[in-house]
Amino acid sequence: MARARLTIDLDAIKRNWSALDALSAETCETAAVIKADAYGLGVAKVAPALRDAGARSFFVALAEEGVVARAALGPEPDIFVFSGYMTGDRVAVQEAALIPCLNSREQVRQFRSDCPAMPFALQVDSGMNRLGLEPADLALVLIDLMGHQPQLVMSHLACADTPQAMQNQVQAAAFQTVTLPLLTTRRSLAATGGTVMGAGFHFDLTRPGIGLYGGLPFADAEPVVSLSLPVIQSRTVLPGEFVGYGATYTATEPRRIATVAAGYADGLMRAIGDRAKLYCGDTPCAMVGRVSMDLITVDVTGLQDAPQTLDMLGPHQGIDALAETAGTIGYEILTSLGDRYARVYKGTQTGEGI
Amino acid sequence: MARARLTIDLDAIKRNWSALDALSAETCETAAVIKADAYGLGVAKVAPALRDAGARSFFVALAEEGVVARAALGPEPDIFVFSGYMTGDRVAVQEAALIPCLNSREQVRQFRSDCPAMPFALQVDSGMNRLGLEPADLALVLIDLMGHQPQLVMSHLACADTPQAMQNQVQAAAFQTVTLPLLTTRRSLAATGGTVMGAGFHFDLTRPGIGLYGGLPFADAEPVVSLSLPVIQSRTVLPGEFVGYGATYTATEPRRIATVAAGYADGLMRAIGDRAKLYCGDTPCAMVGRVSMDLITVDVTGLQDAPQTLDMLGPHQGIDALAETAGTIGYEILTSLGDRYARVYKGTQTGEGI
Repeated sequence: MARARLTIDLDAIKRNWSALDALSAETCETAAVIKADAYGLGVAKVAPALRDAGARSFFVALAEEGVVARAALGPEPDIFVFSGYMTGDRVAVQEAALIPCLNSREQVRQFRSDCPAMPFALQVDSGMNRLGLEPADLALVLIDLMGHQPQLVMSHLACADTPQAMQNQVQAAAFQTVTLPLLTTRRSLAATGGTVMGAGFHFDLTRPGIGLYGGLPFADAEPVVSLSLPVIQSRTVLPGEFVGYGATYTATEPRRIATVAAGYADGLMRAIGDRAKLYCGDTPCAMVGRVSMDLITVDVTGLQDAPQTLDMLGPHQGIDALAETAGTIGYEILTSLGDRYARVYKGTQTGEGI
Repeated sequence: MARARLTIDLDAIKRNWSALDALSAETCETAAVIKADAYGLGVAKVAPALRDAGARSFFVALAEEGVVARAALGPEPDIFVFSGYMTGDRVAVQEAALIPCLNSREQVRQFRSDCPAMPFALQVDSGMNRLGLEPADLALVLIDLMGHQPQLVMSHLACADTPQAMQNQVQAAAFQTVTLPLLTTRRSLAATGGTVMGAGFHFDLTRPGIGLYGGLPFADAEPVVSLSLPVIQSRTVLPGEFVGYGATYTATEPRRIATVAAGYADGLMRAIGDRAKLYCGDTPCAMVGRVSMDLITVDVTGLQDAPQTLDMLGPHQGIDALAETAGTIGYEILTSLGDRYARVYKGTQTGEGI
């Protein structure tokens, strides 16, 4: 194997969707967030798998992503755009029949002027101060709309990865209050974290993202990705010899060092430093030295035979464990996965795993 | 502008190549490293620009990258592959006429068996212990080769970003010694750092990478990339209100906060935290709160008018300055730049800038 191999388990994604769907009431719809190329895993494959699992509503960040999602999903599903309606979005929104989550009075005005007959959603701010209409703006927007109903009104939690944070209750209460004038409109507050936190956050539609892809805060998520890296060569490094950029690792006894064909250009961020492990089957092997652009170096002294491949993501080290070594979150591990991997999709779509 | 816009100045890349070429003697060839999709900038555009500037030899990390480079460059240039010759590389190497930098006795044997008539290079280890033949292996390889000459023998410096590091002299001396039996073969040790350090590191071919793309350790590099991000909306945040995930920023006085359409899925790593600035023309604006997947939030209180766009990379903040705020190096800023940007190539290839 010349290239590193990233395996994406579409059946696991489908099962994660079903498991998250089962957490909310029958009357609550479970959508799917597929922004950022389905969190780096490939929207062209992932979106249809989620549709097959039962998702009928999808969320993307940008209109351009909505166009790609529409091509993958066909005409039926609803595709919502978190960023709303920005200058230059008209053609994409109209041709791909996207539903913008309008964030400001200005966006509402522009969208209603460009696309008066098209459905839309409203995003309201419930305290995160990132995207969405302020309550005062919402009142004005409802007047501007002259009775035209949004298809959905939504907001976003800032602290849903910390269920005990008081801010979650404060935001849910604010969302209740802010959306009172829209009682006939379906409401959505919960991403994965809110879905896991329980019924008080579900409203009419949940929209999990990271949980579908195997990450926290959905602790029961099934892992979705595995990453196997080819060894280019192995060598014995003698005491006093160093390894890699900046000579940050020096051997104190003879060590067997394998050089592996993936680096920070593949999303194995430099911040991982030498803290992560790679696995040969069940045996952990420590990284040594710095992550290079295309290479990492690994101490394989403990292995009987020179390995052909080493696993960076798999049963022993998932995205959240790797994220911890890099001082980040599983989401960023996923969205950083690079373009050089050979991507293998496992699951019913490709005929495997049936 | 709905999407963030990444502008890549091909003419600046060409001038950087010429400036690096001018640092070495006439008799020393200046190649170009275009691995990792030309450091994230797009090999299909960058490689032909470098060829037009005068580069005749190119370096990639993997055979698969060599295939893409060959399609961009046409049949003439030499394309070397740093990882050498791995299982599964035969078709790519033969069809794209790639020159592997063979790293081990095993790679030499396999390549010579699969492709006996094809040119090859040798990579030797001069102390970095990452890729390349150990001196003892080289002696055996020269016997195995029975007089077949490599086209190039190369090695790589571990500490070239620290010119004063003694290790650089040690590696250059080791490279001299190790390559003594190959005196009729052209030799290459220097990437950008070695090229800048001077003639003692140049040998017969230099192979700059990062310096072409505007990064340190080529301090005289001309900037190559600029990155302009669209503002989705701006809001006033009142004292006591927070912004973004984890509620890490709380306003202590009324602030005007802009939400900008790019995040860590676009390579603006979470590690940037709130330490970077965005620029509205010449006016710096501080990031506030955490980087989200698709969004960042910026304090624009100091601006007269609500901005339409804010610049993340430009004349006031280059790749190395941004890297410093993230605790990394300019190389990783470049290779992390995501796929969602609208990419605009400036330069003679697109008819602009003539």
